[in-house]
Amino acid sequence: MARVVIRGGLLVTAADEVEADVLVEDEKVAALAARGSAAAEGWTAERVIDATGMYVIPGGVDAHTHMEMPFGGTVASDSFATGTRAAAWGGTTTVVDFAVQERGGSPRAALDAWHEKAAGQCAIDYSFHLIMSDVTAGALGEMDALVGEGVTSFKLFMAYPGALYSDDGRILRALQHAERSGATVMVHAENGIAIDVLVEQAVAEGRTAPRYHGETRPALLEAEATHRAIALARVAGGPPLYVVHVSAEEAVRELAAARDAGLPVFGETCPQYLFLSDEELARPGFEGAKYVCSTPLRPEGHGAALWRALRTDDLQVVSTDHCPFCFAEQKELGRGDFSLIPNGLPGVEHRMDLLHQAVVEGRISRRRWIEVACAAPARMFGLYGRKGTVAPGSDADIVVYDPAAEQVISAANHHMNVDYSAYEGRRVMGQVVTVLSRGETVVERRRWTGRAGWGTFVPRATCQLVG
Amino acid sequence: MARVVIRGGLLVTAADEVEADVLVEDEKVAALAARGSAAAEGWTAERVIDATGMYVIPGGVDAHTHMEMPFGGTVASDSFATGTRAAAWGGTTTVVDFAVQERGGSPRAALDAWHEKAAGQCAIDYSFHLIMSDVTAGALGEMDALVGEGVTSFKLFMAYPGALYSDDGRILRALQHAERSGATVMVHAENGIAIDVLVEQAVAEGRTAPRYHGETRPALLEAEATHRAIALARVAGGPPLYVVHVSAEEAVRELAAARDAGLPVFGETCPQYLFLSDEELARPGFEGAKYVCSTPLRPEGHGAALWRALRTDDLQVVSTDHCPFCFAEQKELGRGDFSLIPNGLPGVEHRMDLLHQAVVEGRISRRRWIEVACAAPARMFGLYGRKGTVAPGSDADIVVYDPAAEQVISAANHHMNVDYSAYEGRRVMGQVVTVLSRGETVVERRRWTGRAGWGTFVPRATCQLVG
Amino acid sequence: MARVVIRGGLLVTAADEVEADVLVEDEKVAALAARGSAAAEGWTAERVIDATGMYVIPGGVDAHTHMEMPFGGTVASDSFATGTRAAAWGGTTTVVDFAVQERGGSPRAALDAWHEKAAGQCAIDYSFHLIMSDVTAGALGEMDALVGEGVTSFKLFMAYPGALYSDDGRILRALQHAERSGATVMVHAENGIAIDVLVEQAVAEGRTAPRYHGETRPALLEAEATHRAIALARVAGGPPLYVVHVSAEEAVRELAAARDAGLPVFGETCPQYLFLSDEELARPGFEGAKYVCSTPLRPEGHGAALWRALRTDDLQVVSTDHCPFCFAEQKELGRGDFSLIPNGLPGVEHRMDLLHQAVVEGRISRRRWIEVACAAPARMFGLYGRKGTVAPGSDADIVVYDPAAEQVISAANHHMNVDYSAYEGRRVMGQVVTVLSRGETVVERRRWTGRAGWGTFVPRATCQLVG
Amino acid sequence: MARVVIRGGLLVTAADEVEADVLVEDEKVAALAARGSAAAEGWTAERVIDATGMYVIPGGVDAHTHMEMPFGGTVASDSFATGTRAAAWGGTTTVVDFAVQERGGSPRAALDAWHEKAAGQCAIDYSFHLIMSDVTAGALGEMDALVGEGVTSFKLFMAYPGALYSDDGRILRALQHAERSGATVMVHAENGIAIDVLVEQAVAEGRTAPRYHGETRPALLEAEATHRAIALARVAGGPPLYVVHVSAEEAVRELAAARDAGLPVFGETCPQYLFLSDEELARPGFEGAKYVCSTPLRPEGHGAALWRALRTDDLQVVSTDHCPFCFAEQKELGRGDFSLIPNGLPGVEHRMDLLHQAVVEGRISRRRWIEVACAAPARMFGLYGRKGTVAPGSDADIVVYDPAAEQVISAANHHMNVDYSAYEGRRVMGQVVTVLSRGETVVERRRWTGRAGWGTFVPRATCQLVG
Repeated sequence: MARVVIRGGLLVTAADEVEADVLVEDEKVAALAARGSAAAEGWTAERVIDATGMYVIPGGVDAHTHMEMPFGGTVASDSFATGTRAAAWGGTTTVVDFAVQERGGSPRAALDAWHEKAAGQCAIDYSFHLIMSDVTAGALGEMDALVGEGVTSFKLFMAYPGALYSDDGRILRALQHAERSGATVMVHAENGIAIDVLVEQAVAEGRTAPRYHGETRPALLEAEATHRAIALARVAGGPPLYVVHVSAEEAVRELAAARDAGLPVFGETCPQYLFLSDEELARPGFEGAKYVCSTPLRPEGHGAALWRALRTDDLQVVSTDHCPFCFAEQKELGRGDFSLIPNGLPGVEHRMDLLHQAVVEGRISRRRWIEVACAAPARMFGLYGRKGTVAPGSDADIVVYDPAAEQVISAANHHMNVDYSAYEGRRVMGQVVTVLSRGETVVERRRWTGRAGWGTFVPRATCQLVG
Repeated sequence: MARVVIRGGLLVTAADEVEADVLVEDEKVAALAARGSAAAEGWTAERVIDATGMYVIPGGVDAHTHMEMPFGGTVASDSFATGTRAAAWGGTTTVVDFAVQERGGSPRAALDAWHEKAAGQCAIDYSFHLIMSDVTAGALGEMDALVGEGVTSFKLFMAYPGALYSDDGRILRALQHAERSGATVMVHAENGIAIDVLVEQAVAEGRTAPRYHGETRPALLEAEATHRAIALARVAGGPPLYVVHVSAEEAVRELAAARDAGLPVFGETCPQYLFLSDEELARPGFEGAKYVCSTPLRPEGHGAALWRALRTDDLQVVSTDHCPFCFAEQKELGRGDFSLIPNGLPGVEHRMDLLHQAVVEGRISRRRWIEVACAAPARMFGLYGRKGTVAPGSDADIVVYDPAAEQVISAANHHMNVDYSAYEGRRVMGQVVTVLSRGETVVERRRWTGRAGWGTFVPRATCQLVG
Repeated sequence: MARVVIRGGLLVTAADEVEADVLVEDEKVAALAARGSAAAEGWTAERVIDATGMYVIPGGVDAHTHMEMPFGGTVASDSFATGTRAAAWGGTTTVVDFAVQERGGSPRAALDAWHEKAAGQCAIDYSFHLIMSDVTAGALGEMDALVGEGVTSFKLFMAYPGALYSDDGRILRALQHAERSGATVMVHAENGIAIDVLVEQAVAEGRTAPRYHGETRPALLEAEATHRAIALARVAGGPPLYVVHVSAEEAVRELAAARDAGLPVFGETCPQYLFLSDEELARPGFEGAKYVCSTPLRPEGHGAALWRALRTDDLQVVSTDHCPFCFAEQKELGRGDFSLIPNGLPGVEHRMDLLHQAVVEGRISRRRWIEVACAAPARMFGLYGRKGTVAPGSDADIVVYDPAAEQVISAANHHMNVDYSAYEGRRVMGQVVTVLSRGETVVERRRWTGRAGWGTFVPRATCQLVG
Repeated sequence: MARVVIRGGLLVTAADEVEADVLVEDEKVAALAARGSAAAEGWTAERVIDATGMYVIPGGVDAHTHMEMPFGGTVASDSFATGTRAAAWGGTTTVVDFAVQERGGSPRAALDAWHEKAAGQCAIDYSFHLIMSDVTAGALGEMDALVGEGVTSFKLFMAYPGALYSDDGRILRALQHAERSGATVMVHAENGIAIDVLVEQAVAEGRTAPRYHGETRPALLEAEATHRAIALARVAGGPPLYVVHVSAEEAVRELAAARDAGLPVFGETCPQYLFLSDEELARPGFEGAKYVCSTPLRPEGHGAALWRALRTDDLQVVSTDHCPFCFAEQKELGRGDFSLIPNGLPGVEHRMDLLHQAVVEGRISRRRWIEVACAAPARMFGLYGRKGTVAPGSDADIVVYDPAAEQVISAANHHMNVDYSAYEGRRVMGQVVTVLSRGETVVERRRWTGRAGWGTFVPRATCQLVG
C-alpha cells in the first residue's frame, strides 16, 4: 500500500462537491487538495488512480444487512463472505449486520457467535447491532458492556409474536436502559399481534397467495406501531429511536410529527420501498414470493411519500435490509401458504446504483445521495469520522464511480448468492469502477482484487446524529 | 500572501470535525491534510498560523444586514466601512446587504446606488439582495438581468403599508417571476395592514411606550402572514421562499408544516429572538426603545421553540438583521410615540459568539453552529463552494476561534458604530482570534490588520438548498 | 285560522323523530302529543291536515339569499316576491337576505332601502344581514343600533377588490366592533387581490371561457383567506365568525382546526358545492356560464370532503347563496370574458329536496337534514325558538313532506324567476306537499295559497350556536 | 298513576328551552304544550306538579357505573339497591352497568349473573354493557345473541394485564365482530403492559404512596392506547368505538383527529377529571387513596382541555364511572403499596349537580348540560326515544330541578353507600327537587318515595349517534 493518489475526479460528499485530488496514506485519507494546486501537483505516490470524468465518493455504509440469518426454518443465502463481496462490488464498504439473541440465550453469546461467523470471512469492514429477542433483566444487564465494545444499537421487534417479538413492557425497559447507556433502540414497527389475526383469518379462508402477505400487513398497523414506539421512547426519557424499513406514508407522518417536536427519532427506508410496489406481490403464480418481505411492499403512492421524506430529512437513511432467500427451495417453503414464505429480499449490491439512478431522475441531489447512503448511516450508528465521508483522517473507503456507465441489473451478472434479482432487467445509469477498503483496492476497474478476511470488525460510538 | 498554513487546530465545518491542517494558496484553500500526516508535514509556507487548542472554522456569512439603511427619516448608523469591519471582528467574512428600490424607482437604479455606497468601503466580501418596494411590470422585467449579475434574491414586505409594503397581488407576481427566473423570494411576514390598525388604536389611547410596539404586533399576525406567503408561493408554482427574522412559535409551525409537505420554504431567525424577550421592551423609561425591531421581541417561550426549530432544521439560518440606530438622536425620535422609533438592532459583530455560547450551553452542536451561521446561509443564497465552508478550492475565509476565551459584550469594546449594545454586560465563552478574508489576514491575534476596500462584491448563484 | 291539527305524520326535528300530532293555535305551535294518546285524541280544530305517511318538519331557514341583488351591472332576477314564493314552494319558510351598504353610503340607509324593497312583497318571513362594503368609523358606529333592531350579522368580502372588498384592517375593525356588540361577522373568504392577478393574466392570454373562472380562483386561495379571517378574529378577541359558501377541502381543514381549538368559527356550504363539480364549468360553448359563482365549483373530491364535514359538524349550515341571473341577457354579459359573467346561481327552491335526496342516499341522517337546513341556521343567526324547529311556542312554520314522491327538477316546472336550472333533469325522491307559514297555509297539497305580503320582517337575536 | 301534569317550568332538553307544560299518561310523556295555551289549560290530571321557577329536564342517563363490582379482591360498596337509589336522588333515572365475563367463563353466564344481582333491586331503570375479559371464539360467537337481547355494547380493557386485559389481537377480533353485528366497542385506553413496568419499578424503589398511582400512568400512555384503539377500529372496518373515562389532553387530541376524519369514534369523560386534579392524589398521609382511579386524575391543565372538548363535541358524554370503595377497609388494602388500592371513585349521585354548576360558571350551556348528561349517552347506547329527552312518547323520566338552590356536597348527607365524598365540602348551585321514573314519583320535594324493584331492565338498540 503506502501512498495512493486519486486524481481528476469530482469529490462528492454529503457536504461538498469539489474538484479535488485525494491522497491516501496507508489505510487513511491523508489529504485533499484542489485540483491543479501546487499542493496537489506535488504529491508523489506508489499508485495513481485516474478518476477523470468520475465521481470520487465515500464507500457506502449499509446499516441493515442479515448475512447467514436464520429465519423461518432456513438461513439467508448470503454468507458473510459472499454478502460482503457483493456489497463491495456495489460500492458499499461497511455493513452493519445483526447478531441475534436467542430466546433463553444471552446477548453476549449471540455476539460471540456472530463474531465467529464473520471473522476471517469479510471482504470489507463490518459491525454489529444486536437483536434482543428476550428482554430479561440479565439481557438488559449486558447492554452496557456491549456498548463498551462498540455494539451501541439494539433492535426490538414489535412484529413476529412467538419468535422475535417483544411486548411493550419489554420495549419500554430496553428504551429505559438505552436512555441510561446512550445506546440507540431500533424497532421493527408493525403491530404483529394484530397482523397475526389477519394472517390467520386469510389462511383459514384460503387466501394463501403471496399477495395476501401484503394485504394482511396494512399500512395502518405500521403507522400504529411507529406511533407507539415513539410514545414509549418519550416515556423512557427520549433515547435515540430508529425505525427500520419504513414503507408506509402514514408511518412517515408519525416520524415527521415526532421530529417537528424535537424528539431524537429517525427513520430508514430501503430501495425496495422506493422503487417497487405491491404489484410485484400480485405477480401471477408464485412469482410474488420473490417480493415477500416485512414491512411489505406498499401500493403506488407510498413511494412518492418516501421520496419526499428523504428530501425533507424526515427519513435519514437508506439501507437494504438485505436478507436473501433463493426462490428455489427457500421461497418455495411458502407455496400454498404465504405465511411460510421466508421474509426478505436481496439488495446489498445495488443500493448505491439505484440511488444514483434517483439522482439522474432528479429525485434527490447528488449530495443527498451520499448523505442517505454513506454519511447519515455512519453518523446514526457512531461510525462517522472513520466511515461515510472522505476527509483527512477518515478511513480510505473510497469509490470511483462512473456516472455515465449504463448497466442492466440481473441475477445473471450480480454477485449475491441468490438465484433471482428483485430488479431483474432494470436499466440504470452509473456504475462502480474501483473500490478502496481502508486503502486497499478490492475492486479495480471492475475486476475483483479483494479477499475474504480483509474486512475487520469496527466498534462503534453512540449516535452522532443527535443535536 | 502566497502560502499560509494553519496548523494544529480542530477544523470544524457543517459536515466534519477533523484534526487537520489547512493550506492556503493565494486567496483559496488549496489543501487539507490530517495533522501529522506526511502530506501535512511536507508543507512549506511563508506564514504559519498556530491554531493549537483552537477551532478553525469558515468565516461567518451574515445574510441579512442593513448598512446605511434609510428608515423612518433617519439612516442606520453603520456605514459599509464600519459595519463590515465590525463583522470581521466578530468572525463574519461575508455580508449580504439589501439594495432598496424606491417607490417609482427601478431595481437597477437601486442596485447601482448600493454598489456605489459599498465600493471601496468594505473590509470583507459582500453581496446584495434587492428589496422590491414597487412591484411594477417594469421592475419585474428587470429581475432576470439582476439574477444574471448575481443578485438572485428579492425581498418583499407584507408589513409597513405606505412604505415598503406590497399587497398580495404584487407578492404573487414577484413569486411568479421568481419561479421562472430561479430567484428566491424573501418576505418580511407580518400582516402590516392589521398591525397598523392596532398601532393607531394604541397611540390614540395613549399606549405610547416602547412595549406597545410588541403588543401591537402579535405573534398571530406573524404566523398569519407566514401562512399566506406560503400559500401564494404554492399558487405561483413553488419558487424558493425565505422568511426573514422568524420570531414566533406559531410562525415556526407554519414553516414546519410547509417543509413536511416538501415545499422549498426556508426560515431565518436572529440572535435577538433567541437570546432576548419582550421583557427588554418593557424596561423602565425609554430604555425599551433600544429593543424595538420588527418582527418584535416575543414573550418567553417563543425562544425555546426557535431553538428547537434550529435543531430540527425547520429554521435553517441565523442572520442578524443588523440595522443599528443610536439611542441618542435616533431611537429618540420615537419618545412619546413608539411608532416613530426607528426599527432595528445592532448585532453583526456578535452572532458567531452568541451562537458559540449556545454550543457551550448544549443548545446546538458545534457542527450545527457552523451550519446555521456559515454553510446554510451560503447555500441558501448561492455562495456555497466559495463561502461557508473550508474545502479545497473554497475562498480562504477562515477564522481561528478560541473556544476557551471569555469575553463580556459591551458598547465599551464593540466595533459597531452605535452607542449601545443589546447584550450589554453579557458574558460569553469563545472569541475570534484571527480572521482571514480571501487569504488576507484582517484580524491577527485580535489586532486589526484589515482595510476598507479589500472586500469585493460577490455575485451569487441561485438557491443551493433546494432538493 | 285559529286551530289546526296535523295528524298522523312522523315529526322530525334536529333532535327527535317522534310519532306525534301537532296542534297549531293562531300563528304558533301550541302543543305536541303522542299519536293516539288521550291528549292528542282530545284535540278539536277548525282544520285537520292528514299527514299519514308523511314527515312533519320545520320550515326551512335559508340564511343566504340575494333577491334583487345588484351585481356586475345587472340585478339578480328574483324579486322578493318571486324569490320568497319559490322558497315556500320548496319548503323554506324563512330567508335571511342581505342589505348592501354602498361605498360612501351608510348601513342604516342600506337597511332602509332593503326594508322598502321587501315590504309587502314576501310570501314568507324574512330577515336581513348587512353587507359592509365601506368600513368607516361612521359605519362601525351604526352597528350597535342595527343589532338592536335585529340585524345582528355583518358580512365582509375578502374578494372583489374595488367593489365589495374590505382589506384586513377593515375586517379587523369590524371584528373588534362585533366582539363588543355580540354581532356575528360573516366573510366571503377568497384572496381577491391575488385572484385578480390570475384573472387579469388569464384574460390577457385569451383564456376567456367560463371554465377559467374556476381555474383563476384556486382552492388554496379560499383556504388562505379562511385561515386569515380566523386569525383576525382571534386578534379581535374571538367574536363569532361565519364563513359563507365553503367549497374547498382545504378550507374545511382550516375550519376544523379552529373548531378543535374551541374558537367560535362556523362554516356554511351550499347544494351546488355538494352536488356539482367544475365539470359543469367546462361544458361546451358558453353553457358553463350557468355555473359561474364564487367561490367556484371545485374538482371532484372536494364534494366528498364537504359531505364528511357536514357529518362531523365542521360545517354547520347549508344555505343556497341564491343569486339568480338569466342565461339570456344576464350571463351573456360575459361571453368572451368570463370575468364579466354575473356571479351567482339559482337555488332557493330546491335546497330541502336535494338534501332529502342525500338522506335517501345515506349521506346524512334524517335529523341531520333538519339540523343543517333548519335548526342550525336558525340558531346561528338568532332565530331559534321561533324558527328552525317545531316545539311548543315556536312559530307554526311547518312543512308536510312526502318522502316517497319522485320529482324531476327543471326550469320547466320551477317557480324561480330564472330561465334555467342548475340541476336540469335531475330526479330526486321527496317533495313538499303542504307548507304553513306562521300557521297560514301557503302551499296546500301542491297548490299555491299564499300571498305577497304575508311574510313579515323577523328581528334576530345574536348567535345561539356559541357555547 | 294515570295522568300527571307538570306546570310552569322551563322545559330544557338538548335541543330546546321552552316554556311548556308536560302531560304524563301512565309511564309515558303524552304531550307538551306551550304554557298558557288553550291546549295546556285544558289538561286535567290526577296530579299537578308545580314547577314554577324550576327547570323541567330529562332524567339523567349514567352510561358507566359499577355496582357490586368485584375488583382487586373486594367488591364495590354500592349494591344495585343503594346505588340506583343514590342515582335517583341525584336526578339520574337510568344507569348502564357492566356485566363482567370471567376468564374461562361465557358472556351469557356473566349477563345472567348480573341480571340476577339487579333483578328486584333497582329504584330506576337499568341496562347492561358486557365486559369481555376473555375474547375466545366462543365468546365472540355469543355477541350476536346478546345484541338481540339489548346488550349492544362490549367493553375491552387495554389496561390490567393478567386480569381484564385483552391484547391487540383480541381487541381486533372483537371490533371485527362488532362491525358485523352493529355493536359498539368500548375501550379502557391505557397501555397496561407498559404501565405495569412503571408500577413495578415504582414499588421496587419504595415509591409506594398514592400519588405514584398517577405518576406511573402517564398521559402519554393513555393517548397512545387511544390512538391504537382507533387504528384497530379502522382496520376492522370502522364499527362505533367509545373511549371511556378520557382524562388526558393528548388523548382528546387523538379523538378530535379521528372525528375530523369522519370516523365513528366517541369519548366519555367523568366529573372527577373535570373538577379534580392530581393534587388530590398527593394529599398528605394516605388521604390520596380516596382519589385512586384509572385513568388517574391528571395535572392542572388537562381539565381545561376536557371542558373545551365538551364544548366542541370532541367529547360527547359525561358519565361517572361510579365504582365506590370505602376508605376504611377497602382503600386501606393499598396502604404501603398504591398498586393494591382498589381503583374507583363514588360519583353517581352528583353528576347532574356538578355539571349544572358548570352551567352556572359559564363553562357549558344549559342545553349542552342536558346533552352530555342525558341525550348523548342515551343516543350513544341506543336508548334514545325512550330515555334522554322529554318528548311525546318518551318514557316519563323527568326531573324538576331548582337552579337556585344551594347545597354542600358531603358524605354526611349523600345517599351512596360509601364513607367519604370525593367532593367533600364543595358548595354548588342547583338541586334536584322531584324525580319521576316512568311516571312514578321516586323523589318528591326531596323526600324519598321510590322503591327497590320499580326499575326495570331496558334493552337497548345499537348506537344512534352515528351519521
